[in-house]
Amino acid sequence: MEWFMIVVFVISVLSLFVAWFLARQLLKQDQGNQKMKDVASAIREGANAFLKTQNKTIGILAIVFAVLLFGIYAATGKFDVGVKTAIAFIFGALMSALAGFIGMYISIRANIRTAAASKVSLNDGLRTALRGGAVSGITIVASSLLGISLIYYAFGGNPLETPFMIVGFGFGASFVALFAQVGGGIYTKAADVGADLVGKVEAGIPEDDPRNPAVIADLVGDNVGDCAGRGADLFESTAAENIGAMILGIALFPVFGVNGVLFPLVARAFGLVASIIGILSVKMKNENEDPMNALNRGYYVTTILAAIGFYAATMIMLKNIWFFYAGLVGLVLSVLFVYITQYYTEYKYRPVKDIAEASKTGAGTNIITGMAVGLESTALPAVAIAGALMLSYYLGNHSGVLHGGLYGTAIATMGMLATAAYILAMDTFGPITDNAGGIIEMSGAPEEVRKKTDRLDAVGNTTKALTKGYAVGSAALAAFLLFSAYMDEITKLTGKAFDTVNLASVPVFVGGLLGAMLIFLFSAFLIRAVGKAAYYIINDVRAQFKENKGIMKGTQKPNYERCVTIATKGALKEMILPGLIAVVIPVLVGVVLKAEAMAAFLMIGTITGILMALLLNNSGGAWDNAKKYIESGIYGGKGSDAHKAAVVGDTVGDPFKDTAGPSLHVLIKLLSTLTLVLAPLFL
Amino acid sequence: MEWFMIVVFVISVLSLFVAWFLARQLLKQDQGNQKMKDVASAIREGANAFLKTQNKTIGILAIVFAVLLFGIYAATGKFDVGVKTAIAFIFGALMSALAGFIGMYISIRANIRTAAASKVSLNDGLRTALRGGAVSGITIVASSLLGISLIYYAFGGNPLETPFMIVGFGFGASFVALFAQVGGGIYTKAADVGADLVGKVEAGIPEDDPRNPAVIADLVGDNVGDCAGRGADLFESTAAENIGAMILGIALFPVFGVNGVLFPLVARAFGLVASIIGILSVKMKNENEDPMNALNRGYYVTTILAAIGFYAATMIMLKNIWFFYAGLVGLVLSVLFVYITQYYTEYKYRPVKDIAEASKTGAGTNIITGMAVGLESTALPAVAIAGALMLSYYLGNHSGVLHGGLYGTAIATMGMLATAAYILAMDTFGPITDNAGGIIEMSGAPEEVRKKTDRLDAVGNTTKALTKGYAVGSAALAAFLLFSAYMDEITKLTGKAFDTVNLASVPVFVGGLLGAMLIFLFSAFLIRAVGKAAYYIINDVRAQFKENKGIMKGTQKPNYERCVTIATKGALKEMILPGLIAVVIPVLVGVVLKAEAMAAFLMIGTITGILMALLLNNSGGAWDNAKKYIESGIYGGKGSDAHKAAVVGDTVGDPFKDTAGPSLHVLIKLLSTLTLVLAPLFL
Repeated sequence: MEWFMIVVFVISVLSLFVAWFLARQLLKQDQGNQKMKDVASAIREGANAFLKTQNKTIGILAIVFAVLLFGIYAATGKFDVGVKTAIAFIFGALMSALAGFIGMYISIRANIRTAAASKVSLNDGLRTALRGGAVSGITIVASSLLGISLIYYAFGGNPLETPFMIVGFGFGASFVALFAQVGGGIYTKAADVGADLVGKVEAGIPEDDPRNPAVIADLVGDNVGDCAGRGADLFESTAAENIGAMILGIALFPVFGVNGVLFPLVARAFGLVASIIGILSVKMKNENEDPMNALNRGYYVTTILAAIGFYAATMIMLKNIWFFYAGLVGLVLSVLFVYITQYYTEYKYRPVKDIAEASKTGAGTNIITGMAVGLESTALPAVAIAGALMLSYYLGNHSGVLHGGLYGTAIATMGMLATAAYILAMDTFGPITDNAGGIIEMSGAPEEVRKKTDRLDAVGNTTKALTKGYAVGSAALAAFLLFSAYMDEITKLTGKAFDTVNLASVPVFVGGLLGAMLIFLFSAFLIRAVGKAAYYIINDVRAQFKENKGIMKGTQKPNYERCVTIATKGALKEMILPGLIAVVIPVLVGVVLKAEAMAAFLMIGTITGILMALLLNNSGGAWDNAKKYIESGIYGGKGSDAHKAAVVGDTVGDPFKDTAGPSLHVLIKLLSTLTLVLAPLFL
Repeated sequence: MEWFMIVVFVISVLSLFVAWFLARQLLKQDQGNQKMKDVASAIREGANAFLKTQNKTIGILAIVFAVLLFGIYAATGKFDVGVKTAIAFIFGALMSALAGFIGMYISIRANIRTAAASKVSLNDGLRTALRGGAVSGITIVASSLLGISLIYYAFGGNPLETPFMIVGFGFGASFVALFAQVGGGIYTKAADVGADLVGKVEAGIPEDDPRNPAVIADLVGDNVGDCAGRGADLFESTAAENIGAMILGIALFPVFGVNGVLFPLVARAFGLVASIIGILSVKMKNENEDPMNALNRGYYVTTILAAIGFYAATMIMLKNIWFFYAGLVGLVLSVLFVYITQYYTEYKYRPVKDIAEASKTGAGTNIITGMAVGLESTALPAVAIAGALMLSYYLGNHSGVLHGGLYGTAIATMGMLATAAYILAMDTFGPITDNAGGIIEMSGAPEEVRKKTDRLDAVGNTTKALTKGYAVGSAALAAFLLFSAYMDEITKLTGKAFDTVNLASVPVFVGGLLGAMLIFLFSAFLIRAVGKAAYYIINDVRAQFKENKGIMKGTQKPNYERCVTIATKGALKEMILPGLIAVVIPVLVGVVLKAEAMAAFLMIGTITGILMALLLNNSGGAWDNAKKYIESGIYGGKGSDAHKAAVVGDTVGDPFKDTAGPSLHVLIKLLSTLTLVLAPLFL
């Protein structure tokens, strides 16, 4: 084993230890009074039940796929590769599911402790929630790193051969991530829309009111959608990016030797260390400071340390400063994405203000303006991605290394993902504080504590929006890297240089058209799925209000579990169709139109997917905050006509930003890993 | 001159004569009473004023561009080509503007005659409106054919050289079409939204009520948006497709000689004859028949005759049955598009019914369901286009002609556009009947006549939706043909075979990403422009109600002209930005990233543009009809909560389907002709 891989192993194991230590500390914290414990335990049970049922479904699908994978390779006479790919697939799927489980295990315990800590001080609440998120973030990144390193050596550790054999790991991770995000995304918004439509609109009771039978389902949704879903998403991002970059490193073997192949793992390990230090550094200066500032400081610490770590990794492993610059491009891109997302989704800026103003003339103009904002919000990120790709390509070419350009873009991706653990911690922070707010509300805590959790909740909404932007950006860069890897894979399989995807050829163009089409169709199915699943919940809530008059009076508790069970069943039922088309359509296109058309399918699907995800995420975020802006007292505040119009926009934005958008990131990466693994089928 | 070109000249001149004859007959028809004449003359004045101002603006821009075009070629030492291209550009622009003007000249005179004829019988109304539309349709197709034929011989009539010199004609046509459609599209929806929001929602007066100061502006909008805009759009479609196909024919010169180059013109001429016969055949069986059935019969007659004509043209000119089959593929595709569009936008079918049902739970669910329908509606058309491209490519390859595949796809495009004149007649039928209804309503005609014009209006809405589907489909096919022509042009310019657009190259991928981005950004600007322009109108209507209390009482006439002037100024102001980015961004990308990246920009921009246009057109159409479905008495009918929710959807859909969607078709084709003409810049 190479000496630097020992460093990688040590860092990943130590990081897992840090996560374990943070978790242990967290679990020791105060859980508040019995009322709070009751609420939290109901959320816990619901989330566990969903994850259990979901994992069973995904498990069965994964086993079927593993057998198919083995069969495909075996049929082409590659028995050994088939066994390894199937094992790697199962291993990746298991690790991804485990990472999602651990993240959620902690977040459904951190919520109540954040609620209790907020009673002491806002700073305590902030730190508790962030550390809860940190357990997820660190565990996910460290276990992805450890998993790849382990399987690399388990499969022989040959730098020229092994990376191709472990692509199954990435596909397994994507496969689980897709279903986890799709299922969780449908659950969370179906419960949210269902709870709001019957509770807020029909019955006129406030958000998180204990009389609403769907309220626990709603709080469960935050965990299964945002924690488990995004966790699986970024687990696969890091895994797929690592494997893809290793494959690209093979092309540079004559220059860098094994160092080029294993550099991605070392860079990731250093980034992980930077993120851990960044997380531990977060602290509010005083109780009146905006908690977001504290999180931003931590992010800057992480970014600077990650840059230093990247410099060290590059100079030790590659001894070429140009690749460090390429890595910086990725780091800068991640910061840019955070700023652009803020501009389009926060109410300090013009776009959200426009939407709020348009609400004065009704829901119609609110929606029109929101769509215009969402469509517009794709432009700057696209230009930023374009610039980053061109610049890192130029820097790589400038390095003096033959074919260094492509490796430059790969390194930019590594730079962008260097801060992944910190971003994930911020992301999981969102549902934890959301839940904490719910627990405080439902347990009837004093107004003063509620205000604190409301502030944390608002910060959580911002971090969730930012991390979505980050996820899109990293998906875009990773995708380019992954289809370069796909082309290397085809070259290896056929023994003929496959370096051209000629859009001027009719089948290739058709492949691209169908790739873009899949993005639209997948979004359609997801948005509709939310509507359908919400319908089941609406019917149950109405039925409960009818059956038991004591609920609205507050004398009797609603049957929360029934709603949770219905939401679980509904979401899992609606998950199957979008999940399957995401797998079946690409396979069909690849088999019929072959490898080159498949590459165009992948690339144009990715381009369209990025833009569509940005449109859905940002319009959704902007509508949400336009409503919040009006609630702050503008244009008549809560209850005004403008507010009613803004509520419509918020409802529309929900499935956009929390179901379809995030699922598209996962779809993009699934397409990449799927083509990598199924490449032999497309010849 | 070749003998068959004499046939082309004869057919185009005779067709213009038919159009002139139909127009003369139409103008002789009864114009009803004085009240009707007053309304019609107000519409006429408003439309003329808009077109005049708009053409002035476009004229200035066109002259600037012509000079730039000349400069670009002159700078590269191609003085002669520069002069010819600039002249062709101006000629194309003039012809396109003229075609739009003639179409509108007739439609703003056919409206009142349709209204008067409807008093006699529904059949008379139908035939009057269709013949009004026919004048547009025939004039546009015939003048595009004549224009290209004339300039072909004016520039030397050399089959190997001249087609490259007349590309400026297509670009000129696209240039005018873009601004005409964008400006007209903004005008029509700004006036519509403005009139509805203040009139229907705030003041509570019905649609087309004479007390609404914006009502004339609204009726003018139908003409300038739908007639002039769509007319310019299809003028450029046919022109660009003809020129592109001629360029592709050059590659087959060794096989077909001059016949291959001029075949597109002959095929178009035969299609024109088929369309004229189809139009003249339309007649209702009796007064109770659905007028749509009569139009459909005419469409089938046209399609069958077009197929026969295509067979004759192919066998005479190319003597190869396989290319006839390829043409049939295009004809079948156009019929498929019509059916798919009907499925997604008519309330007989599941999608619109779903939206209507979702309206029961409010505007939020109405919008969510509509978006899902729109996104889903892109799938079947994409598959149909993919199938048509593959099949016609296969048939072309099967013809035994070397490189016949690409020519096969070109011929499929010709097949699709063979029925263009009939489709255009049906399309212009829409605004004429819409206007007729408005005139009847405003002149206070009896209920019975109104019912007839309402029926015609409903048919007009359907035909408008169908022709939009057709326009997208033909834009998709034409685009593939046009970028093949672009590649031939680059080959000719560089003397090196340019047959590969390699998406795996970083700059090419970036070009593609930016192409897709332009589609999103352009849509955003257009949707926002409607909002802004509507705002000017809303303010004026409110001011008029305030200034003059007699208006609402019905004792005093509102100042219609003031509203028309404001709408004109607003639309033209908002037209500039989207129009310019559509021209400037592609030029920038081409100049910086060069020819190959530009090809990817064009191709991926086209793919994304097609899907986005389908999403916008179909969701808009579906929302519109979901509202109409509820108005027919479902879910509580007019005035119910479901209806209010459906009105929100309809408002959202307006700028989607009548501004952004149709402008995207034009943008796609503008990108193609722009790259063709500016190719020397991208080397």
